[in-house]
Amino acid sequence: MPFWRIHHPVGAYTDQDKEDFAKAITARYAAEMPAFYCDVFFYEVEERNAFRGGEANGNFVRLQVEHIARAIEGKVMQEFIMDMLTETIRPWLDGRGHLWEISIGEMPAELWRVDGFTPPPFRSPAEKRWMEENKPSAYDWTEMVGLNADGQIAGLVDPRG
Amino acid sequence: MPFWRIHHPVGAYTDQDKEDFAKAITARYAAEMPAFYCDVFFYEVEERNAFRGGEANGNFVRLQVEHIARAIEGKVMQEFIMDMLTETIRPWLDGRGHLWEISIGEMPAELWRVDGFTPPPFRSPAEKRWMEENKPSAYDWTEMVGLNADGQIAGLVDPRG
Amino acid sequence: MPFWRIHHPVGAYTDQDKEDFAKAITARYAAEMPAFYCDVFFYEVEERNAFRGGEANGNFVRLQVEHIARAIEGKVMQEFIMDMLTETIRPWLDGRGHLWEISIGEMPAELWRVDGFTPPPFRSPAEKRWMEENKPSAYDWTEMVGLNADGQIAGLVDPRG
Repeated sequence: MPFWRIHHPVGAYTDQDKEDFAKAITARYAAEMPAFYCDVFFYEVEERNAFRGGEANGNFVRLQVEHIARAIEGKVMQEFIMDMLTETIRPWLDGRGHLWEISIGEMPAELWRVDGFTPPPFRSPAEKRWMEENKPSAYDWTEMVGLNADGQIAGLVDPRG
Repeated sequence: MPFWRIHHPVGAYTDQDKEDFAKAITARYAAEMPAFYCDVFFYEVEERNAFRGGEANGNFVRLQVEHIARAIEGKVMQEFIMDMLTETIRPWLDGRGHLWEISIGEMPAELWRVDGFTPPPFRSPAEKRWMEENKPSAYDWTEMVGLNADGQIAGLVDPRG
Repeated sequence: MPFWRIHHPVGAYTDQDKEDFAKAITARYAAEMPAFYCDVFFYEVEERNAFRGGEANGNFVRLQVEHIARAIEGKVMQEFIMDMLTETIRPWLDGRGHLWEISIGEMPAELWRVDGFTPPPFRSPAEKRWMEENKPSAYDWTEMVGLNADGQIAGLVDPRG
């Protein structure tokens, strides 16, 4: 779900840097959802193709993020999460003297599929199993009861009572 | 309007594959709107730049889609359309052993232009003409009456009664 | 904040063209916000990777824009801004015989950071200072009072009365 796309100057990161950077981002999400939901892609952009304020810039990293599985509710959580992510990624950004900018868009979870599967509800048994197995697989209604963002039980009810 | 961007491993698709894949996607939309609304772009991403779950992955296809002209209303339609699209694209994805993920964002139709023209209303005479001619062109108010998503007539009314 | 990504055919623009194009876009925003909020990135896409209406197209420019700092309120403003932007960018698009399409998505300002800083409120003293200095820097609550989109004062109030 989180899809991070990191547009960076030519040569800014070695392959090892990229792996470290991607792992640091992924670890933040993997505490809360299947690790394989987190995609991090790197794109090298030449200085002549990257303008900031109308000037070609060879030192600017632009991070573009899509959140899908979870929407962040309320100002307090938004600030908390942006602060947490900022501290996580800083070592590869201003920590190395780069200018940078990040923006996160929130996409509807209903318009999302992973390996052809509809991802199971938030904190449902199926999501927990996906998290443990770190890959998607089929699940049925008995694994679909989950929690709303406000912590209330949601999902299918066993008709046998 | 639908803008499909397919981030794929190096060498995953031949030019013929890409054409077939793009045509299969486009055909789904062209039943309902001008074919030229549908853009499909391919981007080759090296394994060292594509991380899933924190691991570089040379077998992962990430599809990122923007819907503009139409928002999908309601859970039932969302599932129907995601299922239809999933079956359409599968042959090029898990049908070939790739891991994959798709997410669709919905953009405001009001902030969209094609070849400089404001696209006409949903199912208006102008849209029908664009569909038949498969290219945009100027239209006036007499071609602008269309239908809302719920099937009711919307748009300009001939002041002559 | 506005992040313009311009996917263009190979060789469509020289480096000078790109600079002129980026500066023309940036000037539109810089009248209203810090110039460095405006990012313009160019991506060369080969004909075999760019399909419009299911056909590979070597003459198609696709512009994908993210607005973050400001949402455009109401039909009238949306049309005004789309018209203004269309006239601004035309010389590099149909003015050169290219087919083109633009779509703008609106992202939540709360999920946005620049060089690690939370951008200050709309038309606040801090934003004005960022605009004058053309770079971000720390600010405190005394610089945070700003205006809502409807022109009313918003933000922190000096507790000393």
